[in-house]
Amino acid sequence: MEVTKRSYSSSANLGPGYDILSLAHKAFFDSVTVKKTGGAGIKIISDSTPENPENNSAGLSVMKILGDRGIKDGLEVRINKGVPIGLGLGSSGASSSASVKAVNELFELNMSPDEMVYYSMYGEIAACGSAHPDNVSSGIYGGLTLISSTSPVRVRKVKINYEMSLLLIIPYSHMEKKTQKARSMVPDKISMTDHVLHASRISTMLYGFMNGDRDAIREGMMDDIVEKSREALFPYYRQIREKAISENAISICVSGAGPSILIFTDENTKKNEIISNTDRIMKSYNVDYNIKETSILEDYDD
Amino acid sequence: MEVTKRSYSSSANLGPGYDILSLAHKAFFDSVTVKKTGGAGIKIISDSTPENPENNSAGLSVMKILGDRGIKDGLEVRINKGVPIGLGLGSSGASSSASVKAVNELFELNMSPDEMVYYSMYGEIAACGSAHPDNVSSGIYGGLTLISSTSPVRVRKVKINYEMSLLLIIPYSHMEKKTQKARSMVPDKISMTDHVLHASRISTMLYGFMNGDRDAIREGMMDDIVEKSREALFPYYRQIREKAISENAISICVSGAGPSILIFTDENTKKNEIISNTDRIMKSYNVDYNIKETSILEDYDD
Repeated sequence: MEVTKRSYSSSANLGPGYDILSLAHKAFFDSVTVKKTGGAGIKIISDSTPENPENNSAGLSVMKILGDRGIKDGLEVRINKGVPIGLGLGSSGASSSASVKAVNELFELNMSPDEMVYYSMYGEIAACGSAHPDNVSSGIYGGLTLISSTSPVRVRKVKINYEMSLLLIIPYSHMEKKTQKARSMVPDKISMTDHVLHASRISTMLYGFMNGDRDAIREGMMDDIVEKSREALFPYYRQIREKAISENAISICVSGAGPSILIFTDENTKKNEIISNTDRIMKSYNVDYNIKETSILEDYDD
Repeated sequence: MEVTKRSYSSSANLGPGYDILSLAHKAFFDSVTVKKTGGAGIKIISDSTPENPENNSAGLSVMKILGDRGIKDGLEVRINKGVPIGLGLGSSGASSSASVKAVNELFELNMSPDEMVYYSMYGEIAACGSAHPDNVSSGIYGGLTLISSTSPVRVRKVKINYEMSLLLIIPYSHMEKKTQKARSMVPDKISMTDHVLHASRISTMLYGFMNGDRDAIREGMMDDIVEKSREALFPYYRQIREKAISENAISICVSGAGPSILIFTDENTKKNEIISNTDRIMKSYNVDYNIKETSILEDYDD
């Protein structure tokens, strides 16, 4: 018997929600297939991720589950990567969460969603040196997730009561150990004034999503701490942002640690103008990119 | 013709919502009556607040409106204080917001709620040296208010989808210039870790209020920045908190800058045990206090 599970791409942070929020979208997905080998140990089959399970985000999550549950079976873990790696789209979280869902089903472990998030977090250690649950929570819950607590893991799914589409700008600018570098750029301390401002913004943004208040989403999704400190990683962002807002995008943010950029749109948004402005700006920075129209993945119902 | 308006007591902050959130309750109210005198100038009639309009929270708000609107009429402003002064219950905000509502109606100014919040803020300068809109937003909107922006003023009213009652502990410990002192005790800088933790908590708490999720309200309403830095002003708080949580209060916080304490309860809460524990603790600190059962003021519909 084998089990295959999918997890989709996601955008962590959403402006003021650094390490707190994440949104799943249909732009890309990973699928992971697990089956018992009859032998021992974990065998990773993948053409784009490390084959040593300890260096592989899916492998590390699977090892942790098998260890905790005392499962001795050998396992083949086949990873089909669809989410581009290292572009702020939750690629490692997609592999690890898909593998956890697959192992949960194969061994009938009946894990709660938060338990699955917990195990999926282990994959993030392989990928970026620290366990954080934002992208993996998207891979387990779908939709918009709020990390209430990391230890113990406590995730809440926020219902979005506004119809919107997404434009994803995906620059092909790869960097070694990008997530570690991006995390090290964030200041250790901030002013109380900035804290109050950004706590108000995340509150306003969540109010907007839950109440379908377009203005509140737009007013809240602004960040002058994390996005600002990392601007060197995506120097085109500020210009793209200004243009997108002036063309009536609902809002815009950096996707995860970047360099990808996520734009929220509706029927009032001049999408074509945003696309052509983006093209002009990205060319002026001499950065290859792709732009993808997509939508929120609201639920995993498989 | 004269116009009389009421504003109720309120609790700002609610734990992690420092300078962002405020909740109106029915425990106390101020009423303000305004009428034209036929002469010039503003005459304050009050037995417990300053009679010089510039030192009076209602007077300062009224002066600002008349100045901005070019209104030359003389005005008598009669303030009946019901909200105790200097105990963290939004007393000055109640007087100023009631006076603004009364003047708005007397002169048929048709101000928007946020405009009324803006003018009410001026009263806070008289009372505590800085203009902040949290308590006054409760006096205008009622219910639970979220300050999205202070300049321009932008307030959102958060619908609470959970039935709850309130216990208000009101210690009679007065201090000169309490609000200024309390504000000066808050640190200028905080760690990024604390920022993320508290932004997650305010998000979780708001999620809880909006979705009627009791656990989320409880998990979110915790503060280790502002309440902690001010603990010397209400040394009994930590013990009362621990007992209230162990007796299954929904949650508990310091009301505004203190010293009053607000406890959220429902039918699962052992209210009598909390009341007797509070009595024991307050006696051990030798602090006179009153305890009042009350409820949320959801709306001003007059």
